[in-house]
Amino acid sequence: MKVGVIGVGQTKFGEHWDKSLKNLIQEAGLAAVNDSGMDKERIDGIFVGNMAAGTFSSQEHLGALTADWLGLTGRPAVRCESACSSGANAFRQAYMAVKSGEHEAAIVVGVEKMTDVRTDSALTSLMGAGDAEWETPIGLTFTGLYALMARAHMNLFNTTREQMALVSVTNHRHGLKNPYAQFRKEITVGDVLQSSMIADPLGVLDCSPLTDGAASVIIASESFIKNNGFAKEPVWILGSHAATDTIAFHDRHSLTEMRSVKLAAKNALEKSGTSLNKINLLEVHDCFSINEIVCLEDTGFCEKGKGGRMVERQEITKDGSIPTNIEGGLKSIGHPVGATGVRQIVDITRQLREEGFNQVNGAERAMAVNVGGIGASAVAHVLSKNL
Amino acid sequence: MKVGVIGVGQTKFGEHWDKSLKNLIQEAGLAAVNDSGMDKERIDGIFVGNMAAGTFSSQEHLGALTADWLGLTGRPAVRCESACSSGANAFRQAYMAVKSGEHEAAIVVGVEKMTDVRTDSALTSLMGAGDAEWETPIGLTFTGLYALMARAHMNLFNTTREQMALVSVTNHRHGLKNPYAQFRKEITVGDVLQSSMIADPLGVLDCSPLTDGAASVIIASESFIKNNGFAKEPVWILGSHAATDTIAFHDRHSLTEMRSVKLAAKNALEKSGTSLNKINLLEVHDCFSINEIVCLEDTGFCEKGKGGRMVERQEITKDGSIPTNIEGGLKSIGHPVGATGVRQIVDITRQLREEGFNQVNGAERAMAVNVGGIGASAVAHVLSKNL
Repeated sequence: MKVGVIGVGQTKFGEHWDKSLKNLIQEAGLAAVNDSGMDKERIDGIFVGNMAAGTFSSQEHLGALTADWLGLTGRPAVRCESACSSGANAFRQAYMAVKSGEHEAAIVVGVEKMTDVRTDSALTSLMGAGDAEWETPIGLTFTGLYALMARAHMNLFNTTREQMALVSVTNHRHGLKNPYAQFRKEITVGDVLQSSMIADPLGVLDCSPLTDGAASVIIASESFIKNNGFAKEPVWILGSHAATDTIAFHDRHSLTEMRSVKLAAKNALEKSGTSLNKINLLEVHDCFSINEIVCLEDTGFCEKGKGGRMVERQEITKDGSIPTNIEGGLKSIGHPVGATGVRQIVDITRQLREEGFNQVNGAERAMAVNVGGIGASAVAHVLSKNL
Repeated sequence: MKVGVIGVGQTKFGEHWDKSLKNLIQEAGLAAVNDSGMDKERIDGIFVGNMAAGTFSSQEHLGALTADWLGLTGRPAVRCESACSSGANAFRQAYMAVKSGEHEAAIVVGVEKMTDVRTDSALTSLMGAGDAEWETPIGLTFTGLYALMARAHMNLFNTTREQMALVSVTNHRHGLKNPYAQFRKEITVGDVLQSSMIADPLGVLDCSPLTDGAASVIIASESFIKNNGFAKEPVWILGSHAATDTIAFHDRHSLTEMRSVKLAAKNALEKSGTSLNKINLLEVHDCFSINEIVCLEDTGFCEKGKGGRMVERQEITKDGSIPTNIEGGLKSIGHPVGATGVRQIVDITRQLREEGFNQVNGAERAMAVNVGGIGASAVAHVLSKNL
C-alpha cells in the first residue's frame, strides 16, 4: 500500500510565552487540515511526536490531548517518543499504521513547549535523551556530548572550527526567507567563532536554540487519495526506517560516526528503491554544527571525515550537489525537539510541491534524517514527487 | 497479514528497590525471548510502553535504552505513551508495524519504575495523564477523579460500596496463585470498607498500588511463525483498536460511562469477526474498583448501571459467565502503569496456552481492555487460540 502526504502545517517556531502546548498543537494541526482541503472528520488516527512534555509542562498523554484539542476525540491516538527524533518516529508509526490498513488517513503532530515551563533547566529535561544513570549524574549536557564528538572529529579528520561555523552560517542564510524560522538573520564565521563558548569547541552559535513550536502533516493511503481527489498533488513516502545505537555515548565503537544514521538512511533508501544519487534534497539534524557534518558523512553523501570540506565547497547550498536544510535547519528555524522531525517532512513537502520559501529548482526526491540523543536513535525517510 | 504472540515474560510486580528501569526491562524482555525459544537476533523492532520515566527517573528515550539493554541495538525502536494504556498502545503499534510488512518479529516491553524515584510524589507524575492546565492545579488526583465517577455511579445506578469492595476482594482471590503478583493475600469486603479513605468513597483497598515492574511479549507475522516452527503454539491477534475521549473529565457528556472503552472494544471486536458471546476470558482495567464495574458495562458484558450486580452474582469468577482479571488484575498483581497493558496480554497468552496460574477451563478467545487516564484513552485487543 502506497502512502502519501496530503497536508502540512506548522506554527511559527520561537518563544511563545502566550501559547500553551494545546494552542501550539491546535494551530499546527488545523493548518495541516486546511492545507489538505480535506474534511477533518475523515481523519482516523492521531500520532503525536513529543519528547518531554511530562517534565516541561507536567503533561503526558498527548495523544488524547491532541485528539481533544483538534476536535477529533473518539479516534485512536498515541504519543511516540525517541528523544529529538520523536517527530520522525511518530511519522513512521503513522506511515506503518496506514500501510497496515488499520488506518486510512492519519494526522501527525510534532510538538515541544520549551519556554515558560516548570522545569528549572530545559537542559536537565533534555538529558532524558541520554543515559540517566551514567551520563546525567556527572553533569554532562548534550552540548558537552556533541563537543566530545566535535573534538574527536577535529583530531581524527582535521575538521576545523571554521568548517563547523560554516554550517551555522549556511543554515542562517537558508532560513532568511522562512517566515516560520526563529532566527532570520545572517551571521558570519567570525560571529560563530566569537560567540560564547558553551562546551569547547562549540560556541552558542554552533547550537540550535530552545524553541516552542509544532508541525503537522496528514498522510493517507493511495486509494484514499485517489478516491477523494485533493487539490494539491500528494508527496509520496517511498521508504522509512529507524535505527538505534547504545544509549550512552561512552559505549560506542566510534565517537565520530553514528551507526544509527548509517543504518536508517541505508535501509530507507533500499526500501524506496532509490539510489543516493537520485536524492536531490536533504534534511539532516543540525542540533549542533558538528552533527550536520557527521550526518552528511553517515548518510553517504561524502566519505567519512570529509563533511567539513563538503560544507566548505558549498555543496549543501541551493546550487550545490545536495541542497541541505534549505529552509534553515534546526539552527535557524529552531528546534522544538518533538516537532523537528515533522517539520523536516513539512519543509520537504513544500519543496517537492515547489512551494518552498527558498525553493530548489527541480527538487524531485528528498531524504530526511532526524536524530535522537547523540545518535542513540535515528529515523530516515525518502519522499518523492512521483510514485 | 495475521500476527501472533510467540513469547511472553515479566518481572515480579512489586517494590524493587534493588532494580533500575534497565534491570526491569532486561529481565522481562529476555524472559519473553526465552519463552519464545527464538533466536534473539531475529527480532527486528522494539516497542516500549512507558508513561512517565521522564519524571520518575529522568529518563526518556526508552526505545533506544531498551534496544541497548536487550542487546538489540541497530534495530528500529520507539516508546509509545498513552498514560496507563501505554502498554497496550505499544502492543498495538507493534501489531500494525508487523501487519504493514515493515517488521517481521517485534518485541514489546511495557515498564514503569514507580518506587525509588526522584519525584516528590508519584501521584503528581501520574496527574500527567489528566489535564495539566485544568485538573492538576486544583489538586485533583486520579483517586479523586475516579471517586467522582464512583459517586455518580452510586447516585445514578444504586451501585454500592460493597459491590465495589467485592471487585477488590475478587481480584485478590484471583491473584492468590500468581507468583508475579504484588499482593497474594485474601481480603474481605469488610477490610475494603474499613480501609483508609483516600477519596470518598474510595478506600485504599479500592485502589491499585504503586508498582515497579515490566512485562514483555514477542509478536511475529504468520509467515515468520510458520517458517520457524516454534515449540509453543502462537496466540493470534484477531482485532485491535484504540479510542480517545476528552482529556479533562469535566468535559464529558457522562461521568459514568467511558466512550473510549465502548469504541475500542466494539471496534476491536468487529475487526476480529467475533461476537461478544464468543469471548470467554476478559482483562479489564481495575485501577480503581469502580473502573472494573464501568468497564464490564462499557465493553457490553452487562447493561449500563448493572456492573455492580454482575460482580455480586460472581459472574466474573472462574466459573462465572465471563471470567475477568483471572490472574489478579491491577489490584492484586500491581499496576506499573506502562507495563499493565502488556501484562494483560501476557496473562491472556498464558491462559490461552493453558499455562495460567489460575487456569480457566476451555478459554479460547479473550479480550483485553487497557484504560489511560480517566478514560481519555482506551485500547482493546481480541486474542484467540485459533486463527
